[in-house]
Amino acid sequence: MGLKVYGLAMSTNTVRVVAALNEKGLDYELVPVDLRTGAHKQPSFLALNPFGQIPVLEDGDLVLFESRAISRYIASRYKETGPDLLRSGGGPAETAALEVWLEVESQQFGPPIADLVFELLIKPLLGGTTDPAVVEKQAEKLGKVLDVYEDRLSKNKYLAGGHFTLADLNHMPYTHYLLQTPKADLVTARPRVLAWWQDISARPAWKKTAASIPL
Amino acid sequence: MGLKVYGLAMSTNTVRVVAALNEKGLDYELVPVDLRTGAHKQPSFLALNPFGQIPVLEDGDLVLFESRAISRYIASRYKETGPDLLRSGGGPAETAALEVWLEVESQQFGPPIADLVFELLIKPLLGGTTDPAVVEKQAEKLGKVLDVYEDRLSKNKYLAGGHFTLADLNHMPYTHYLLQTPKADLVTARPRVLAWWQDISARPAWKKTAASIPL
Repeated sequence: MGLKVYGLAMSTNTVRVVAALNEKGLDYELVPVDLRTGAHKQPSFLALNPFGQIPVLEDGDLVLFESRAISRYIASRYKETGPDLLRSGGGPAETAALEVWLEVESQQFGPPIADLVFELLIKPLLGGTTDPAVVEKQAEKLGKVLDVYEDRLSKNKYLAGGHFTLADLNHMPYTHYLLQTPKADLVTARPRVLAWWQDISARPAWKKTAASIPL
Repeated sequence: MGLKVYGLAMSTNTVRVVAALNEKGLDYELVPVDLRTGAHKQPSFLALNPFGQIPVLEDGDLVLFESRAISRYIASRYKETGPDLLRSGGGPAETAALEVWLEVESQQFGPPIADLVFELLIKPLLGGTTDPAVVEKQAEKLGKVLDVYEDRLSKNKYLAGGHFTLADLNHMPYTHYLLQTPKADLVTARPRVLAWWQDISARPAWKKTAASIPL
């Protein structure tokens, strides 16, 4: 019956799912997957996600993978509980903006920030050495993306318009981590982006989420 | 009033939007954007898409970018016209599967096939030389992804279940191009993936779409 998240409390993609569950005030069980022993490549896990990646959500008989698919599923399936993260009554213009900014996170923001967080934070933890060339290249890419955000957020309080939505939420795990690196200024040097982050990270559901991240 | 697509008939991401419009039987105008002269970086185009990329959809007063956001918008806004590509009446299990396989296309299938099509088809057209190391690496990645598809399609006729949906459609532009390269066997050597492709590419809307691709 209950909701189960297979993942790790420190994994950004797991945090994306946990953040959505917390916004909805839903109870869930986090089932740890030990990546160091390759638990995610064992048949029992591959039966849940054939790509062998975390997180996976179990909701009764339903099994979902891909963190953005899961966060959207939670927002849609539990629409009536907590804030409507998909603004279903918002009309075509708001829906269109929401679709656009969900994809912007996935295609424009996601790849460079994932590379930055890996190089600056995760790689050293795994015993590797940060590659400054990768950092500079990806920081430049992300900076250009965030210039567009700065402009967008000078005209709209949130990415999809006047309300906090899943488009904002999907950005939170990686932004949280980036702010702990020497490239935090990509966010803090942009006043509108910083104000947006301060606003969304002050949400009670996010505070609960952030408190559960061990890093 | 009418639908306008700013893009190029040969661009895979433009084709994704055109394919959705054709499935819905909608009329549209294709407004060419001359990438060679940098038209996509001019202020008039940046006012449509601040990221300076094609395609852009104009639907009356609405302006959308990011091809997957646009194809989903078309499927949702014009739900009543043509096949319901989002299976809105399908129930939670079908909705969950659709969300998962839309994301699988975006996150697992998209990156390696985009790199392959670029190296094998686009780069030579631009006067560059294919890098065999990139081709081998990305072909191996895509092969592993398509092994999962082979298994999925042995149990379901389409990716999200028993019906053709946006999850299938979003795969079509890059698959169409890959089949014109020496790595076509990534598809043709997998019987279920090949049968799926033969089925979906035989759709009248796709035949119309494919006929409009100049390459």
